[in-house]
Amino acid sequence: MLPRFFAPEAGATGPLVTLPEDEAQHLSRVLRLAPGARVHVFDGQGHEWQGDVDEVSRQRVAIKISEPVAPAPESRIPIVLAIAILKGVKMDDVVRDAVMLGAAAIRPLVTDRTEIGLATIAKSDRARRWRRIAVASAKQCGRAVVPRIHDTVTLDTYLGAPPDGARLMLVEPGASAHGRDLRSVQTPAATDVMIGPEGGWTGAEVAAADRAGASLVTLGGPTLRADAVPLVALTALRVLWNDL
Amino acid sequence: MLPRFFAPEAGATGPLVTLPEDEAQHLSRVLRLAPGARVHVFDGQGHEWQGDVDEVSRQRVAIKISEPVAPAPESRIPIVLAIAILKGVKMDDVVRDAVMLGAAAIRPLVTDRTEIGLATIAKSDRARRWRRIAVASAKQCGRAVVPRIHDTVTLDTYLGAPPDGARLMLVEPGASAHGRDLRSVQTPAATDVMIGPEGGWTGAEVAAADRAGASLVTLGGPTLRADAVPLVALTALRVLWNDL
Repeated sequence: MLPRFFAPEAGATGPLVTLPEDEAQHLSRVLRLAPGARVHVFDGQGHEWQGDVDEVSRQRVAIKISEPVAPAPESRIPIVLAIAILKGVKMDDVVRDAVMLGAAAIRPLVTDRTEIGLATIAKSDRARRWRRIAVASAKQCGRAVVPRIHDTVTLDTYLGAPPDGARLMLVEPGASAHGRDLRSVQTPAATDVMIGPEGGWTGAEVAAADRAGASLVTLGGPTLRADAVPLVALTALRVLWNDL
Repeated sequence: MLPRFFAPEAGATGPLVTLPEDEAQHLSRVLRLAPGARVHVFDGQGHEWQGDVDEVSRQRVAIKISEPVAPAPESRIPIVLAIAILKGVKMDDVVRDAVMLGAAAIRPLVTDRTEIGLATIAKSDRARRWRRIAVASAKQCGRAVVPRIHDTVTLDTYLGAPPDGARLMLVEPGASAHGRDLRSVQTPAATDVMIGPEGGWTGAEVAAADRAGASLVTLGGPTLRADAVPLVALTALRVLWNDL
C-alpha cells in the first residue's frame, strides 16, 4: 500500500492539493518523502486519487493528484457505533478499531455508568483527539471514508432524536430484560449498535431504549472486556449480514 | 459473577482446596476476602464449583468447595490459534483476547518475519507470562477451561507435526497465493487457524503451508492491525459456524 494522506479539500481545488498541517508533518517529518514520491490522497468522503508529491517546504506540502483510484469498498449496511464513553485511553482504542472494522460513524454517549460527564467532555480535547485517531485509522486500514465522530450526548438525548435506521442495543445475556440472539435480527438497511460502558447499562436505560424502539440483543457466550465489545460486535454483525 | 479462582488440583483433593500462590494472593491481598466469603473455583479443565473461603493465612488460603456448578459452555468446534509471535506486549493482548473468544489452545510460532527467535524465547519468561495471562483471562471471562499455551516452535516444525484437525492459514487478500473466502470453508470438527506476524507470511511460508495441506483463506475487506486479527478471526469463524 502506498502512503495515504487525508486531504478533505481534494477534488474541490483542482489537481494541486495542499495537505492539512498534521498530514504535511506526517509526509515530511515522519515519512520524509520528497517531491516526486508516489502517494495516494483521499478526501474522507470515499474518494481517492493517485498523486505525486509536488512541493515540500516549511510553508506547505502539496500533492499533484492525477487519476482517481477505486476506494476500498465500504460496508453495504452502514453500522453506526453508539457507544458509552469508556475509561481513559480505552475509548481511543475503540475509535481506532471501529474505523478499522468499517463503522459508518461513531456516536459517543454519556450514560448512568460512564465515569465522565458532558461538561468534562466539553472542556477536554477528547473530541478532537478521537477525530485525529479516526483519520489515522482510516489512513492505516485503507478506507477512503473517515467516519464522523458525532458530538457526545446523553443516552436520553440520543434516544429522543429520530434514528437514522434500526437501533440495536447490546445487553448482557444475564440482564433482567433479556435480549434476543443477534442471529434473530433481520438484516436492516442501516443500523446503530448501542454498546454500554464497563459497568453495563442500568435497568432503566434498557427499559428506555426498549420503549424508544431499540431491539435488545445479546452477543451470546463469552463475557468480554468492554473495550473488545465493539470489535467483536462489528465483526459479528458484518459476518452475519454477509458484509465482511 | 462471584470471584473465581483457578485451582488445578480442585476435584482431586477432597472438599478443601488449597489455592496456588498467585491465586491465594489475589484472594487475600487484592480482593481482601475473609473466611466465609462465597466464591467459585475452577480447575482449568472445564469443572467449576461453588465454595466458601475456609482459611486465609500467611501459610495458605483454602476454599471449601460444595456443589459443582455448570461451567460456561465451550465452543462446539475447538479452534486452536497458531500464531506468529507479535512484537512486545501485543502478544500478551493476543493471548488474553484469544482466551476470551474461546480459543481451545494457543500455539506460538516463530516465522521468517517474527522479530524473535526460539533461543530468545527459551531464555525469556514469556511462556510463563502467557500462561499467567491465560489464567487471568479465563477467570475474568468466565471460562472454566484454561487453554493450553503450547511451547513455541518454528512454522516448519509445526507444519511437520500431524495436525489435530483442519488447518486454516489466514493470508492477505492481495497475497500472491490467493486465499478463498472464509465463507467457502466447510465447517470442520476442529481446526487450527494460523495467523502471521506484523509483516505477514513470506511467499515460501504460504507455499509450504499449502503443500502441508492447510487451506488458505482471507478475512475479506479491511486491512487489520496484526494484534486485532485473532479477535476478528475467532469471532468471524464462530459466527460463521453458528458457534457464538
